[in-house]
This record gives sequence, C-alpha cells and structure tokens, in this order.
Amino acid sequence: MAAPDVPVLVQRAREGDARSVARLISLVEDASPLLREAMAALLPYGARASVIGVTGAPGVGKSTSTSALVSALRAQDKRIGVLAVDPSSPFSGGALLGDRVRMQDHALDPKVYIRSMASRGHLGGLSWSTPQALRVLEAAGCDVVLVETVGVGQSEVEVAGLADTTVVLLAPGMGDAIQAAKAGILEVGDVYVVNKADRDGADATVRELRHMLGLGERRAAHDWRPPIIKTVASRGEGLDELVEALEKHRGWLEETGELRRRRRRRAAEEIEAIAVTSLRRQMGDPRRGPALEELAERVVSAQLDPYAAADQLVEGLTATGTVPPG
Amino acid sequence: MAAPDVPVLVQRAREGDARSVARLISLVEDASPLLREAMAALLPYGARASVIGVTGAPGVGKSTSTSALVSALRAQDKRIGVLAVDPSSPFSGGALLGDRVRMQDHALDPKVYIRSMASRGHLGGLSWSTPQALRVLEAAGCDVVLVETVGVGQSEVEVAGLADTTVVLLAPGMGDAIQAAKAGILEVGDVYVVNKADRDGADATVRELRHMLGLGERRAAHDWRPPIIKTVASRGEGLDELVEALEKHRGWLEETGELRRRRRRRAAEEIEAIAVTSLRRQMGDPRRGPALEELAERVVSAQLDPYAAADQLVEGLTATGTVPPG
Repeated sequence: MAAPDVPVLVQRAREGDARSVARLISLVEDASPLLREAMAALLPYGARASVIGVTGAPGVGKSTSTSALVSALRAQDKRIGVLAVDPSSPFSGGALLGDRVRMQDHALDPKVYIRSMASRGHLGGLSWSTPQALRVLEAAGCDVVLVETVGVGQSEVEVAGLADTTVVLLAPGMGDAIQAAKAGILEVGDVYVVNKADRDGADATVRELRHMLGLGERRAAHDWRPPIIKTVASRGEGLDELVEALEKHRGWLEETGELRRRRRRRAAEEIEAIAVTSLRRQMGDPRRGPALEELAERVVSAQLDPYAAADQLVEGLTATGTVPPG
Repeated sequence: MAAPDVPVLVQRAREGDARSVARLISLVEDASPLLREAMAALLPYGARASVIGVTGAPGVGKSTSTSALVSALRAQDKRIGVLAVDPSSPFSGGALLGDRVRMQDHALDPKVYIRSMASRGHLGGLSWSTPQALRVLEAAGCDVVLVETVGVGQSEVEVAGLADTTVVLLAPGMGDAIQAAKAGILEVGDVYVVNKADRDGADATVRELRHMLGLGERRAAHDWRPPIIKTVASRGEGLDELVEALEKHRGWLEETGELRRRRRRRAAEEIEAIAVTSLRRQMGDPRRGPALEELAERVVSAQLDPYAAADQLVEGLTATGTVPPG
C-alpha cells in the first residue's frame, strides 16, 4: 500500500468517508511516523464530540449496552463513533474482539463509525492513542464517541480518565460491586448502570452500590451526584433514562467548567505520554550517553545503585527539536 | 515514628530481623526519600535469590499454590520471601488482600517473610518497586522469593517480566486457556501449572494449553520448552514435580546466560522507571519551561498540536544531578 497522503485522508474523513477514518485510526494504532502531520491537520476539528467511556467487568454486558446506547442516540439522529480499545494483550499484536458481533446491528449505518484499536504494547499507549483516535472521529463529525474497553484491569481506570463522562456498568450478582471496587472502577463513574436488571438481585446490587458510593461522601452542593440507572440493554429497557442521565451530566460538565478541565487533563496526558515515549527512546540510544544496557549491567554487578544509574541516564539526555510519534 | 536510620535497618535486615525487613519494604511502598540511601546500602547483597513470579486469573488458586510452594521449599530448609503485589487499585491507597489468610500457615515461621505491597498509583511503579523490594528480601538472606500478583490484567504480564522464572497457573474450565491468552499471560510462562487437577476437564485444559503453547512454535534445540505440571495445591499434590521443574529452569537459566540477561532487563526497567518518574516530575514543574497545564490548554484550544507541545515540554527539561525516588 502506498504511503497515505495525509491532507487527502483528513479531507475525506471530514467528508465522512469511513475508509479514510479507518486509515487515519490505523496510523494511530501503528504509531506511524505520519501521525505528527495527521494530528496537526486534524487539530482544528477536535474537541467537538461528547466522549463517553463505557467500562465494567467482563459479563456485565458492555458490548450489548454500547450497542443499545448507539441505537438510542441514533434515534436522535446523532452521528456516533464507537472506539473499542483493547489494552489487555500487549504481546499479541492484534485485538481479540470476540464480542464485536453485537455491534453488527450498526455496521451498515453510514452515521456510525465502529473501530477497534489495540494498544500493542506501547507503554502508556492508551494515553496518547485514545485522544488521537478521538480527534479523527471528531473530525469526521461524530457528535458522540463511545469508548469501550475490552479486557479488564487498570487500563479501564486509565480509559475512564480520558472520557468526558464515564459510565460504569455492573450486573446483579454476589460481590460484583466488591469486584468493581477492587478494580478501582467504582471511583471513576459519573453514571452507574446496573444492567440485566430483570435478574434476581438487581435491587440488592443497586443498594450495595449506593452504599459503597456513599462511603466517605463529602460533596458540596454543586458537586455531581452519580445516578444509578437500571437497564436491560438486550431489550433496550432503561436506555432513555441512561441517555437522559448522560445529557444531564454533559450539562453539568459545561456549566461548572469541568468539561474544559477534563479535556485539559486529557491533552496533558497525551502530551506527557508523547514526551515520555520520546525520552524513553533516547534513553535506549547509545549515542546519548551511557547506554541503558551498560548501566543495567553495572547495577546487576553491584557497581552502581539504581538511582545513580538513573542520574547518569537522565544526564545523557539532550532535548532534540523533534519528538517522533509512537 | 522517628525517621529510620537506614544503615541500622539494613544491618538488622541482614541479620534476619523481620521488622526491619518490613520497614525497608515500607520505604519502597511509600516511595520514601530515604530509598536512594537504602538501595545504595543494599546493593552488595542483591541478586542472590531465585525470583519466581506466580501469576494467573482469579480463582485458579494462586494463594493456595504459593502457600503450598512455600511448604515444599521449606522442606528443603530454604529461606523464603513472599511478595504479594497489588497493582490493581491505583486509587484506593491500600491493598485489598482478601486471600492473605491462606498464607497464615507460614506466619510464625521465622524463615519465611510474607509481605504485600500496593503500587498506590505510581505510574510504572511496579517496575521500580518490585526490584527494590526484592533487593530487601535478598539482603535478608532469602534463597527464593515468590512474587505473586493480586488482581488481574496487564500488570501480571509486567510482573512476569521482573521474575527469573514465571509460573502461570490455570484451572480446569471451559475457555480458561483462552482467557489466559487474552490476558497475554500464555506468552510469559516458563512453567505452566494446571491446578485443581482433580476436577473434571483437567486433562482437556492440559491438551488445550499444549495446543496453544505449540502454535507458531519455532524452537531451537537449546531453547526452554515450558513444561505443564498438574497440581492439587490444596492437598500438596504435584508440588514435588513443580519444585523440580523450577530447579530445572533455574539450571537452564544459569547454563545459557539467560539468568544474567533477565536480571539485566530487570535492572534496566528499574533504572528507566526511576528516570522516567524523575523526568515526569520535572515536566510538571513550571520552573522548567512552559508548564504542562499551559501546553494542554493550547492543545485544547487548537493553537498547538500535541507533538509540538511535547517538543516544548522536552525542550524545557534540563537534567539535574539528582533523581529523587518515587
């Protein structure tokens, strides 16, 4: 495949061409050297969509809920992006997206872009790749972008930090709220959803959740109080309430200036991740001072303590004019 | 509590005083400013133990297996360290170690040090805190240190990278090997254990695992071929075979020079993590050039693309002589 012409891709993506959108996101996924040019070209069209993170443990119905949410938002004629991020497999070089089949209801809708993205072992890769993929989807005119994580663990918390609004999903079942608490995701939700609410124990899960959310609560009057919504996503039940809660949160974000604050945080994380990636590369570069390998050998041989080694590594760095992507 | 006297702590830890070992590991956990001094003092006593990572999904019997392994190694009169690392809850500021109760068999044994350590949201914290806690346990005379991860996700893979030998645990059950593959842990094992081997489906899990491990296999004659061991850890069954497999792997590590290579990698990751932490702190420091916050605001306002912002951030860095810990 010939190297893509970035200005052409950006222009076509802006006109809503799905293949150009896909190719631009592939540049992000591949940490392409063209990213710098692409991000500069996309810059004026960013920061337009509501970015909604969807997170929760496996089995709570993330894909089904995301799909139901797409349907509900499409009923308002919104243009939607769905970004399924798979940070859980740093080695395999490919996302295992078994559940993507549920999104096929929307596969033929020209106003819905669905895209999975693997982080492929870039350290801190989520921090820069997610904002960059968002910039592509925003340029393509998306009103709402749903960012869904595939897999479990700390990455979910990381993704939550990149959204404007974070939806945390749970399902009825013993200890589910406790599992969620362990994963740290109870602390990142703006809206909580107890899905599969037609099952036994749904009310108990709501109560348990309300209890856990209330622990240590010290809220000011203007603070956001995360609502708990019951849904049966597979039948579309509760979706109107969920959409309403999302709109309410969006209003709160705008009124309080919190939206701006969150986006600044997202940009800060992106910038920092790009800078760290660059510095990390320089650290491995023997032309820039004592190579990391050599320092490591001296630490293993007990000739140098790790802090002294880190000092030498940092001293060997000199800032260059250009930070390569990836 | 008065600030600890590092040379005294190190001396006492070397004499096997459990409280001094615990206090030194607390310095690591708290990213104490005393760490630099402590690591320099501990340096001559490091790199002595066999470091065995124990990883696997929740429910496979990690704690029970670790405890059984401690019993088996104690029968050889080895001095053992157990480091339970909890990287899954970056926000809570405390490890949720529900299963620690299983280790209580060994709580009164003076030749077993058991310690849990939370990473407390330090980014890349595992990369520097695990080697440093290992250094403490090695100075205390441990022959073997078992590093067990609490929680799930990418962190398990990260911890595996820090061990000399990584044991990946599975248990019988549909799709368990597939779940493990998703989590990326099938690619990091030196020894595989199918625990709960008295349950239905154990042989099927072994076959499935053998199949998945064999996929795409291109091994040279001197390469390590990961064995699959069946255990019932709760009854101590299969533990002799496991210990034997671990000894065999240790022999292979030493013969091939792979041990040195892995330890160099561990030291390199530690050094890099310390350096990145320091650089990250400098990036947030407004005295060192355009502050990150200000750059983020300009990216959000579409005045500056994120790569140009990262360039400015890197340019603002000047190496200092001293890298603080944490």
